[in-house]
Amino acid sequence: MHNSHLEIRVVLVEPLYEGNVGSIARSMKNFGYSDLALVNPPKLEGQARAFAMHALDILTSASVYSSISEAVEDSNIIIATTGNPGERVEAHIRMPAYTPFEMKKLLEGKRGKVSILFGREDKGLSNEELKHCDMIMSIPTSPQYPSMNLSHAAAVVLYELNDLKGGNMRLAERFDLILMYDHIQELLDNIDYPAHKKGKTMLMIQRILGRARLTSREVQTIRGFIRRIQYRLKHPPDE
Amino acid sequence: MHNSHLEIRVVLVEPLYEGNVGSIARSMKNFGYSDLALVNPPKLEGQARAFAMHALDILTSASVYSSISEAVEDSNIIIATTGNPGERVEAHIRMPAYTPFEMKKLLEGKRGKVSILFGREDKGLSNEELKHCDMIMSIPTSPQYPSMNLSHAAAVVLYELNDLKGGNMRLAERFDLILMYDHIQELLDNIDYPAHKKGKTMLMIQRILGRARLTSREVQTIRGFIRRIQYRLKHPPDE
Repeated sequence: MHNSHLEIRVVLVEPLYEGNVGSIARSMKNFGYSDLALVNPPKLEGQARAFAMHALDILTSASVYSSISEAVEDSNIIIATTGNPGERVEAHIRMPAYTPFEMKKLLEGKRGKVSILFGREDKGLSNEELKHCDMIMSIPTSPQYPSMNLSHAAAVVLYELNDLKGGNMRLAERFDLILMYDHIQELLDNIDYPAHKKGKTMLMIQRILGRARLTSREVQTIRGFIRRIQYRLKHPPDE
Repeated sequence: MHNSHLEIRVVLVEPLYEGNVGSIARSMKNFGYSDLALVNPPKLEGQARAFAMHALDILTSASVYSSISEAVEDSNIIIATTGNPGERVEAHIRMPAYTPFEMKKLLEGKRGKVSILFGREDKGLSNEELKHCDMIMSIPTSPQYPSMNLSHAAAVVLYELNDLKGGNMRLAERFDLILMYDHIQELLDNIDYPAHKKGKTMLMIQRILGRARLTSREVQTIRGFIRRIQYRLKHPPDE
């Protein structure tokens, strides 16, 4: 059913209620997805199985992790879903937030593995967790009552991405992205970038490059560019 | 939130489980709807209220009917939702089935009251009931497992019809973008970036930043970052 160029992994981060895990397994099968990852899930017993209905295979083949980083290790893009981000103080961490429809458009024509993170029923994803994601997705809801049930949010996202068309643009590997961000961090150090601005600037750069969905080659070019800057910092041009 | 020209009524036809009724009330409030009609519902007690969460007002103000015809009496359009209609014998009754997206397009520009019917968890809507609807809507699902949970199907439909236009992110002005690109170009010169690579790299940077659709603030941060690099090129850190 799905374009084999984009593999979607659903990652549930510390879900509290097994019924939601089962419901999401069902929605996944409804929309033709099968890769479910669970980070520190609750015990999955009768209720999870009952809600999964005919998607028991997805539930039983789910992979279980004790940290997000393990769950997304081989993902080219990590997408976090959050509740309505409108009014938050930490807006710089949560913005820009794309709608599921916008996210679909951003992923079109790409090739690689995409992990979509859903947070806890009560607290969602922490700011620290959000910082490690490439892009933020948020379902447009009413300001009067923005908080959706977890499994319903997942159903909406899976429905929207259902007709996503992948393609041949190969996304950069997670490993290379991490090296690139480390490299940028190093450059900020090299130029004595003001310490109090460093965190925010780094996050903004991550948000910018995250949503740019870089290819491997682009990452290499950026790193070459940085290396050249670093070289010139050590060997300044003659005035 | 919604276009006042189109009033949407959600009609649940003989739902079996009160938890689903509560869940749907919650989804309605999530997407800014309030008009819920119930045809021969089960007793709504603790579970319905628990699942409704902060949408208790929608649950308690729901109107109750003993027949569909009463529930849709003042509706200009009646839409029935059905499971995947692909293989049915009674295809002529169930076709054409529009996706929620197609339905949205069909309703655009109209004025009036629209009732959307959702059938029983186990048997959906009968052929007889379908005949009395103006249009059929079906969520595209996997042929391997087309049957969605009722409340999840409702969430997907309400999400799709809830055409919220985002758009409070002010995009950078063209003028500032040009200054930024000039600035990057200047930096390439400063660091004696290899001449034969300069054009391609510049273009790639433009593609990356172009598709990131920068805000004004992000452009300023990038330029500050570059200025700092330039400063350090002229005043290199002590080795």
